[in-house]
Amino acid sequence: MISKVDHIGIAVFSIEEAMPTYRALGLEIHEVEEVPQEGVRVAMLQCGESKIELLEPTRDDSPIATFLAKRGPGMHHLCLGTDDIQADDERLRTAGLRVLRPAPTRGAGGCWVQFVHPKSTGGVLLELSQPAAEGEE
Amino acid sequence: MISKVDHIGIAVFSIEEAMPTYRALGLEIHEVEEVPQEGVRVAMLQCGESKIELLEPTRDDSPIATFLAKRGPGMHHLCLGTDDIQADDERLRTAGLRVLRPAPTRGAGGCWVQFVHPKSTGGVLLELSQPAAEGEE
Repeated sequence: MISKVDHIGIAVFSIEEAMPTYRALGLEIHEVEEVPQEGVRVAMLQCGESKIELLEPTRDDSPIATFLAKRGPGMHHLCLGTDDIQADDERLRTAGLRVLRPAPTRGAGGCWVQFVHPKSTGGVLLELSQPAAEGEE
Repeated sequence: MISKVDHIGIAVFSIEEAMPTYRALGLEIHEVEEVPQEGVRVAMLQCGESKIELLEPTRDDSPIATFLAKRGPGMHHLCLGTDDIQADDERLRTAGLRVLRPAPTRGAGGCWVQFVHPKSTGGVLLELSQPAAEGEE
């Protein structure tokens, strides 16, 4: 079941250049993570129970670089937090929605994640995320 | 000070056609409001402390209709909740950001709202929102 907005992913050319705006709002970087296989550097800004996730490409052929070239900087995806991603995955398939992975996989921070194609959601790249259970490898 | 993600505004051609996706996720419409001066019908879906706001145009010349014609359906704006919109407004101006109204004005649900131009935020139309104080007209 969906329990919250986990984060909003925002594509930026540069985290450093994007930060003055967020700092003017009193938001600060909580954590930076580099994900080489996605060609992206990720800065997380805590905002209540949710996060703002700034996504900066680290190479020209990364999906975020492609998004920036095509649409410019801006909101990239919406991630909803869930406490049962397996059940959500099944419900989405039953409803005929196009999920992007054969089953939930491990993502940033060890969470289980699944994605729903924008064609199934009215133009929103939707991510679902569930924290790994304690002790889960 | 920013306290949470208040809502994510999503432009849709039709709330009715967008809902099966959200229903498959267990999300339901909490409230529908029509805002004639903006030419938009708004459906609110509660999601933890945040909301998903589906924005459907009610006439061809509304800003949401223009957005849909130009970019297609998808994420339209990000609204952050604050407990002191006057102070945020001043801090944003001091930081040189382009706010859209001379001062915070009353928006949907009687909240005080201000907007920051996407050119000042790296492509994100940013809304700030503060609930009206009790008894405030």
